[in-house]
Amino acid sequence: MNIQQAIKQYHLELLFQQGTFGIEKESQRVTADGKIVTTPHPAIFGNRSYHPYIQTDFAESQLELITPPQKSLKESLRWLSAIHEVVLRSLPENEYISPFSMPLALPAESEIQVAQLDNREDVAYREHLVSSYGKYKQMISGIHYNFQLSDEFVDRLFALQKEYQDPIAFRNDLYLKLGKNFLRYQWILVYLFAASPSVESVFFNRGQIKPEGFVRSLRSSHYGYVNHAEIKVSYESLQQYVETLEHWVKSGKLIAEKEFYSNIRFRGAKKHVRELLAKGIRYVEFRLFDLNPFAQYGIELADAEFIHTFILLMAWLETTATQDEIELGKQRLAEVALEHPLTVTRYQQEGLDILNQLEQMLLSLGASAETIATVKQKQQQMLSPETTICGRLVQQMQQATDYHQLGAKLAQQYKAAAVERYYALTAFDNMELSTQALMFDLIQQGINVEILDENDQFLCLQYGDHIEYVKNGNMTAKDSYISPLIMENKVVTKKVLAKGGFNVPQSLEFRNVSDAVASYPLFEHRAVVIKPKSTNFGLGITIFKQGVENIDDFRQAIEIAFREDKEVMVEDYLVGTEYRFFVLGDETLAVLLREPANVIGDGKHSVAELVAAKNQHPLRGDGSRTPLKKIALGEIEKLQLKEQGLTIDSIPEAGRKVQLRANSNISTGGDSIDMTDLMHPSYKEIAVKITKAMGAAVCGVDLIVPDYTKPAEARLSSWGVIEANFNPMMMMHIFPYQGKSRRVTKNVIKMLFPELA
Amino acid sequence: MNIQQAIKQYHLELLFQQGTFGIEKESQRVTADGKIVTTPHPAIFGNRSYHPYIQTDFAESQLELITPPQKSLKESLRWLSAIHEVVLRSLPENEYISPFSMPLALPAESEIQVAQLDNREDVAYREHLVSSYGKYKQMISGIHYNFQLSDEFVDRLFALQKEYQDPIAFRNDLYLKLGKNFLRYQWILVYLFAASPSVESVFFNRGQIKPEGFVRSLRSSHYGYVNHAEIKVSYESLQQYVETLEHWVKSGKLIAEKEFYSNIRFRGAKKHVRELLAKGIRYVEFRLFDLNPFAQYGIELADAEFIHTFILLMAWLETTATQDEIELGKQRLAEVALEHPLTVTRYQQEGLDILNQLEQMLLSLGASAETIATVKQKQQQMLSPETTICGRLVQQMQQATDYHQLGAKLAQQYKAAAVERYYALTAFDNMELSTQALMFDLIQQGINVEILDENDQFLCLQYGDHIEYVKNGNMTAKDSYISPLIMENKVVTKKVLAKGGFNVPQSLEFRNVSDAVASYPLFEHRAVVIKPKSTNFGLGITIFKQGVENIDDFRQAIEIAFREDKEVMVEDYLVGTEYRFFVLGDETLAVLLREPANVIGDGKHSVAELVAAKNQHPLRGDGSRTPLKKIALGEIEKLQLKEQGLTIDSIPEAGRKVQLRANSNISTGGDSIDMTDLMHPSYKEIAVKITKAMGAAVCGVDLIVPDYTKPAEARLSSWGVIEANFNPMMMMHIFPYQGKSRRVTKNVIKMLFPELA
Repeated sequence: MNIQQAIKQYHLELLFQQGTFGIEKESQRVTADGKIVTTPHPAIFGNRSYHPYIQTDFAESQLELITPPQKSLKESLRWLSAIHEVVLRSLPENEYISPFSMPLALPAESEIQVAQLDNREDVAYREHLVSSYGKYKQMISGIHYNFQLSDEFVDRLFALQKEYQDPIAFRNDLYLKLGKNFLRYQWILVYLFAASPSVESVFFNRGQIKPEGFVRSLRSSHYGYVNHAEIKVSYESLQQYVETLEHWVKSGKLIAEKEFYSNIRFRGAKKHVRELLAKGIRYVEFRLFDLNPFAQYGIELADAEFIHTFILLMAWLETTATQDEIELGKQRLAEVALEHPLTVTRYQQEGLDILNQLEQMLLSLGASAETIATVKQKQQQMLSPETTICGRLVQQMQQATDYHQLGAKLAQQYKAAAVERYYALTAFDNMELSTQALMFDLIQQGINVEILDENDQFLCLQYGDHIEYVKNGNMTAKDSYISPLIMENKVVTKKVLAKGGFNVPQSLEFRNVSDAVASYPLFEHRAVVIKPKSTNFGLGITIFKQGVENIDDFRQAIEIAFREDKEVMVEDYLVGTEYRFFVLGDETLAVLLREPANVIGDGKHSVAELVAAKNQHPLRGDGSRTPLKKIALGEIEKLQLKEQGLTIDSIPEAGRKVQLRANSNISTGGDSIDMTDLMHPSYKEIAVKITKAMGAAVCGVDLIVPDYTKPAEARLSSWGVIEANFNPMMMMHIFPYQGKSRRVTKNVIKMLFPELA
Repeated sequence: MNIQQAIKQYHLELLFQQGTFGIEKESQRVTADGKIVTTPHPAIFGNRSYHPYIQTDFAESQLELITPPQKSLKESLRWLSAIHEVVLRSLPENEYISPFSMPLALPAESEIQVAQLDNREDVAYREHLVSSYGKYKQMISGIHYNFQLSDEFVDRLFALQKEYQDPIAFRNDLYLKLGKNFLRYQWILVYLFAASPSVESVFFNRGQIKPEGFVRSLRSSHYGYVNHAEIKVSYESLQQYVETLEHWVKSGKLIAEKEFYSNIRFRGAKKHVRELLAKGIRYVEFRLFDLNPFAQYGIELADAEFIHTFILLMAWLETTATQDEIELGKQRLAEVALEHPLTVTRYQQEGLDILNQLEQMLLSLGASAETIATVKQKQQQMLSPETTICGRLVQQMQQATDYHQLGAKLAQQYKAAAVERYYALTAFDNMELSTQALMFDLIQQGINVEILDENDQFLCLQYGDHIEYVKNGNMTAKDSYISPLIMENKVVTKKVLAKGGFNVPQSLEFRNVSDAVASYPLFEHRAVVIKPKSTNFGLGITIFKQGVENIDDFRQAIEIAFREDKEVMVEDYLVGTEYRFFVLGDETLAVLLREPANVIGDGKHSVAELVAAKNQHPLRGDGSRTPLKKIALGEIEKLQLKEQGLTIDSIPEAGRKVQLRANSNISTGGDSIDMTDLMHPSYKEIAVKITKAMGAAVCGVDLIVPDYTKPAEARLSSWGVIEANFNPMMMMHIFPYQGKSRRVTKNVIKMLFPELA
């Protein structure tokens, strides 16, 4: 069939451009001065026997970062960014990630430790590689690009033709065509994306001699990671591909199928190529990409998208490369790899021709102007080698005093950028911080996480066959449905807590002044707080700490409250300080004191200056995406200052605490202070019991405690419970303004996956 | 202390009027002609060893209905009504509840079966009563009225005095005063509320002779349910009360403390009077009330409230009756009980005096005008005996041809009233019907139910120590928190279902016409439905059942949909009929077909007449408080008729089904048709599996099934899942328009309390 005609005739342009993508990126851990480290793979990344995101390749020092399959490259690159941020923030302080494909400052071979995997076979395989190729060659890193055509596209195409009876055979041949053409024209991608122009001489330690000057890609050349020349595999049919590859393994020339270092690999659901014959090819792995040192995480989105269209072209072309043409393509690749990066390639015309066909294809497909512009840029690069990645790289290397220096500088720069907003996961910054923190921990520990709904903070977690869903960071199947319903209803909460024997302030609600005043006898002599039902910045609240003693005072307080709301509450007043207890299961994990926005005078600076200085804190921001908020200087703050006889220009004496808010919300600039270790354990136990009474697994319990150093007693003057909250905030415990961080997201994971503990 | 002064001085008027109330009402089950039944206590009421609401008293035929403790009499009477509705609707068709205290048409003594309780001691006690009093006397029924003063009131009063050191002693003496004064003046209540003027002669079978003519209260007289005259108990102190009562038991004159038939009993948390000494009196039981045959459930709210104020007066009085005065009070009671109901009582002056003091007290307390009006009415009754309950009763009896006839007529009338709205629990009619149905079943089965929040449909259920909470009829702790969150989010639901391998129609959403049209190729040749994201009465929906074949048709459908909403969905169209599967745990309990509002022509009546006739169905109503809704004849219905070439005045031919709505919602007059037994079991299994995939315990699964008789197959043309709903509606299954009722509320109870199964 003619694929171009079929796509046009049956309007399959969109489907053709859909697909599933995955990126695997190797890179060396290095020190600040660019030397490959000799430390083991960090234990914080958990077990490599199942880690879906953070693996090691050949050596302990060689990270392999893997994005989960995504429907768009934009998503793949978000994941690549997120995984990098996790890794970079988890590495020891003096460790970085090398931006280069070629190793920087190789240690002695004896110091390079082969990846210490659980699977003995995997370790044995690496030992074999050492003896065949030496350790140094295995230290080269690159990017593997996985691509799967849309199943629906392939199915539709199959339905439209008559040549094939078997859909699997049809699919295999489509992927074979794509693969063969790719091998024929792959040199173009090397020309455009190569970035391994040089390496230190010590690398050439097994009879090879370092080539003169710079080349485009040592990695793609015969100096790189390639099989011995005799290893040739047939692409005539999948059957032949399988048989020739198996032949090399049987003959002992390859120790395993995976030692076949082709720039493409056909992949199925299982490990061995023979298994491809049963279920067919599912996707193709492209392995020829050097790390782009100018991209923070080794590859740019526009380049990844260009590669996608290039791969599509390989399927789109009317011809299919023959076995001879494949060999021709490999030769050209080898040649181009060793060209000087600043010279025009000798195959420029073929390159321009193919890129022109790519442009034509994109026009046929109705691709976006942006996509076409990228192709035009690559056409330009075909004419101007100095604008290719490698061209730019060697120009910088020529300027740098030292090849290592550039690598080390970039490595430091990229780590600094990844650490800057350490409380966030930049790529997923439109999700809540708590969900970002949870995802950080999941990626770090190697639990599969799928975003089901980004706006809704809905995640699917999986470890082995065990699936859990999480919404908003800690809403899970561990809580029962009824507990948030209880907590949502303050009346029901109070009844349930009172039933459970907890100290609850009693309250009555009124809808008019006269009913409230008629009930005055019920409150006489009692310490009560009179407040509008929905409190707003403390307006309309009157507190009778010593008990209300006459009806006129009471009436006045009721009237004040009714100015703010249609419903007014009269509630037992509890003397003491409010603390938030974060409970998970049987434990209070964190206790937090929230202080209203404030500054401490120094006798020198004005309130406005003190606020500005306090707002410099890295955790403070304006929007919703920082753990703490900047203190504003609006009407409410000015009113609060006025009550203390101050303006924003006043200079408070040294040590004086100036309050800028009556309410203690973090969202209005309040301070969060961790009190977990200071709080008497008896209150923590009460919080756990309250959580159990609510039937909750995770709960934020607000207790009023007059003296946190004394043990709790069974009376309202010792403590009282104000509220129990489902889906309690986590960020304020993880990133408090003062005191120790409590990484409660890790406890959420432990709760969901106890088998990982 | 002077209680009146204390209340006035410390503004305790409101607290004094607060309290906790409970009503126990005995009554005989009778046949339609008023004969006491000889059938056993209905098994549907479960086990009497724990039933909190429905018990038997002496005989199997003698129901004892018990309201749970409530803070207001209004609530108590709601419960009394609810329990009656449950009982009356659960009784066999030919059984009723006698409205009279005195037995109607007594069977032979040998036919009266003593209540068959599990506890052998309880049965032995009843056998003893038979030998002491005979069976007939035990067949008398009445109302016991339980009252507890507000604890806070008693505590405050205690704090205001100096005489007592021990709060329990203080409380005991307060209740003793109230009890003693009550015994002194109780005859007034007999005068006002007596209603047992006569009984058939056979009742007097142990040497007594039936008195001439009518009396006020046989039940309160020596013909009634009284101890032998020698049994005298001291009320001087709680100690003496306990000791004298124990004396009679020890001496064998009483077989047990409960054989002491005083009109008041002091009650504590435990069973034996001696235990009162430790923890003190908690409440008082008043036992002298005849059933009011004119009240549907034996007592009127205004009378119950009057009794409350009368009891308060007994505490309010400045004096406390001496032992002699108590005896005097008992004598007067005995005399008044035997007065003719139409004669003025010989103690009228004392009655008026006490009622006057009651009025004064209420004025002092600032009681409502309504409450005071009731007292004035009772003062009037003191002057006009013919206006008392018993006065009215004997006048009616004199008119009736037969004493039984009146009782039978009232019993039938009250049962008919209780059955009329058989889908509701009238007293709790401002709650959802499903919660009413659940409460019905809970009361029937004897599980304690407490309403935590009436507006929020929040119940607390308790059986033994086992507590469960229920909101909106089926939201419980059995569901996990995450499942409603999954179901709430349609995108997440689809992903989770697709992951689970269920047939899900795929859909894409668009925010503008051009994006949608650009995606046309994805939908070409596919059966799709194009609709506004939030569908409203089917407006803006286009269905391409045979597949969309050209882009112009597609664009037009998209434009139509965008007229109705800002977001438009293009979804796989599923051919077939939508069914609702109600799943609980491992079982599909009910399958329902919802048909749009319709009438079937008969060739004679107009559409409007057919609608009017269909709207006569007892389940159809206008508001939210009927299981089905009346069919409207508004704009939408007329439009729908127009499309069929009809108006509301058209006379459709016989058998023609005329649709009045496009949507099948029950809320717009749709029919609900039970399909549970017809649906092929394979679909029911799928619904259960979908529920499990949602992690839900209770779920409403909407499946599209083209042919419910054929087994399900694993392709979208065999079935597809449209939605999974948490908190699924129950009423439409319990009260379908056609087909069998599925009482799913009982399964909810079984799920929560498996120990009861």
